Amino acid sequence: MSVTAAKGFTAAGIAAGIKQNGNPDLALVVNTGPRRAAAGVFTSNRVKAAPVLWSQQVLADGELTAVVLNSGGANACTGPQGFQDTHATAEKAAEVLGIGAGEVAVASTGLIGLLLPMDKLLPGVEAAAAELSEHGGEKAAIAIKTTDTVHKTAVVTKDGWTVGGMAKGAGMLAPGLATMLVVLTTDADVDAKGLDSALRTATRLTFDRVDSDGCMSTNDTVLLLASGAAGVTPAQDEFAEAVRTVCDDLARQLIGDAEGASKDIRIEVINAATEDDAVEVGRSIARNNLLKCAIHGEDPNWGRVLSAIGTTSAAFEPDELNVAINGVWVCKNGSVGEDRDLVDMRYREVTITADLAAGTESAVIWANDLTADYVHENSAYSS
Amino acid sequence: MSVTAAKGFTAAGIAAGIKQNGNPDLALVVNTGPRRAAAGVFTSNRVKAAPVLWSQQVLADGELTAVVLNSGGANACTGPQGFQDTHATAEKAAEVLGIGAGEVAVASTGLIGLLLPMDKLLPGVEAAAAELSEHGGEKAAIAIKTTDTVHKTAVVTKDGWTVGGMAKGAGMLAPGLATMLVVLTTDADVDAKGLDSALRTATRLTFDRVDSDGCMSTNDTVLLLASGAAGVTPAQDEFAEAVRTVCDDLARQLIGDAEGASKDIRIEVINAATEDDAVEVGRSIARNNLLKCAIHGEDPNWGRVLSAIGTTSAAFEPDELNVAINGVWVCKNGSVGEDRDLVDMRYREVTITADLAAGTESAVIWANDLTADYVHENSAYSS
Repeated sequence: MSVTAAKGFTAAGIAAGIKQNGNPDLALVVNTGPRRAAAGVFTSNRVKAAPVLWSQQVLADGELTAVVLNSGGANACTGPQGFQDTHATAEKAAEVLGIGAGEVAVASTGLIGLLLPMDKLLPGVEAAAAELSEHGGEKAAIAIKTTDTVHKTAVVTKDGWTVGGMAKGAGMLAPGLATMLVVLTTDADVDAKGLDSALRTATRLTFDRVDSDGCMSTNDTVLLLASGAAGVTPAQDEFAEAVRTVCDDLARQLIGDAEGASKDIRIEVINAATEDDAVEVGRSIARNNLLKCAIHGEDPNWGRVLSAIGTTSAAFEPDELNVAINGVWVCKNGSVGEDRDLVDMRYREVTITADLAAGTESAVIWANDLTADYVHENSAYSS
Repeated sequence: MSVTAAKGFTAAGIAAGIKQNGNPDLALVVNTGPRRAAAGVFTSNRVKAAPVLWSQQVLADGELTAVVLNSGGANACTGPQGFQDTHATAEKAAEVLGIGAGEVAVASTGLIGLLLPMDKLLPGVEAAAAELSEHGGEKAAIAIKTTDTVHKTAVVTKDGWTVGGMAKGAGMLAPGLATMLVVLTTDADVDAKGLDSALRTATRLTFDRVDSDGCMSTNDTVLLLASGAAGVTPAQDEFAEAVRTVCDDLARQLIGDAEGASKDIRIEVINAATEDDAVEVGRSIARNNLLKCAIHGEDPNWGRVLSAIGTTSAAFEPDELNVAINGVWVCKNGSVGEDRDLVDMRYREVTITADLAAGTESAVIWANDLTADYVHENSAYSS
């Protein structure tokens, strides 16, 4: 159901010919109201794609009516022409929808450093507008896929209102958001401030804690649009929790479909002095290539966990560290613990628990293993 | 000639049985004087192996007479027993050499989290002492290999004095030193302060700028011993330059033999506002897995260079960045530059030049590509 699960939204996904293989590559999401409140979170990469720069600008007033998304090209590092192309895309959507370009966000994903084929993209916007439907959410989710093997959607329905969404992303997943495009919609009657607060909290705890390959994208975009069509204003806490649930679900789907991965690694850092310490340690473990290889080889190599922890500035004493892999405490007090042969690593999900013995805070970071398939997928062709 | 190129040193390398395959695994280097000045630089990982903790301690007075090195086990994360084992190793060397244990540094490399087989190591120290020779440098260099495919030595001879050395290291190579053990010797008459200054400058500009896989070891140790046997005290500048030349040579050999690598990547960051900015940007590029895969695939994917630069805090404007790959400026002003098809990437060495257009400082970082062989070597067995 994706972005059209909530009332007050239409969507479409079509093949505009941007991708050379003819797969769907253009999505349109429209808020039909009555409210047009919106919030967004974008990549923290300082090299930002043209659509990110554009969308940050149009979101300044907390309102959006439509989002145009394309796969098949990131429109990043494309200079002034790239920005003009994004602008023209928004203008075209505004024209066919009878609104202003300042109400249209744009999101792009694909290869960096290539101009988009505007002769295909602009007619595509018209074609997509002609197909807008209250049942178009699925098609929109399919049209934003790049190397994703499956499309990703999630929905939470509460008492009379709904939060739904779609996501794409399979590589270049790292903190500061993953290479992802995400559009969330709700029919709850929430203003821009409420949306912004709920979205920032949710992304900080979900998408920002996904680290597939340590690489931060130029195009990450997460948008949340509210139509108010349900005529219900939930309590902010309840609304924020629903948004977080949807983001959590989508983030987990991103990790589960990461390029070339054979394992999803749940890294729990516990007993940290601060949450920041827990996140720093979790990310350091998540990005350790040697550990990622070991997990791929189903080798409970806790020494690589400790060497990753040791590179951080978190509070801990080396001889008080404990590490469990899938529940077996293979490292105790910074040294050999339980028998590593007890660790069963046959399944796709692997849990690494790092106990810093320095406080009461914790965090979970999700990562993937490093595989020959990842190398192949990212060396055999440009992406 | 390795560590015995300089006068006043003997060395040996033997198979003590620490490695199960029977390969050489124990080296001994002895300074026969007249001077016993020494300096050392160690891993900045906060999880330090027992031999690192021991050697830092015995170096506090700026003097060393002997170094015992073993491959086949890192003696890291081995608790109080691990430290006692290092201590016992130094005591044994002291006993057979007729010196004090406080004059003996110890360095170990291999799998983390395993106690060393002391029943083999201690007799090995005796056997090595019996083989000490002024021609033993080569054998010592061979005995410290782990996954290295070749042993690494370098020598610079100046007017009447010499600096020589040996190194091991093939994986877990990253700033804050690579997983490396290095012993440098000189017969120049230099005091501990002069050695320390020369060694710190050299490692900062050589070993600290090698980043094979982003992983920082628990055991990195670089020692410089001076015998004074040449009876010459060179100018500090000249001496420091010779030490740097030897370190540069060894660091380049480490990158050239990194696990599974098919490319050596020279990352030049130019026109940076500060040297720290240049190093930060160089390391960020060096650690970008997607770029490392692209280089493996001989794909001049400059978009991945820009996305790596964008994650740093260095001074630059995104639309002023320029990137050359093997001399072809494929990215100009943050956008498309010269034709990427002009880039010839057939050879092992690849140069990436990142022009930050923000100042006059520069730095060079060396890295490797990411390959299926690296994944295989680090997932198929524990190391």
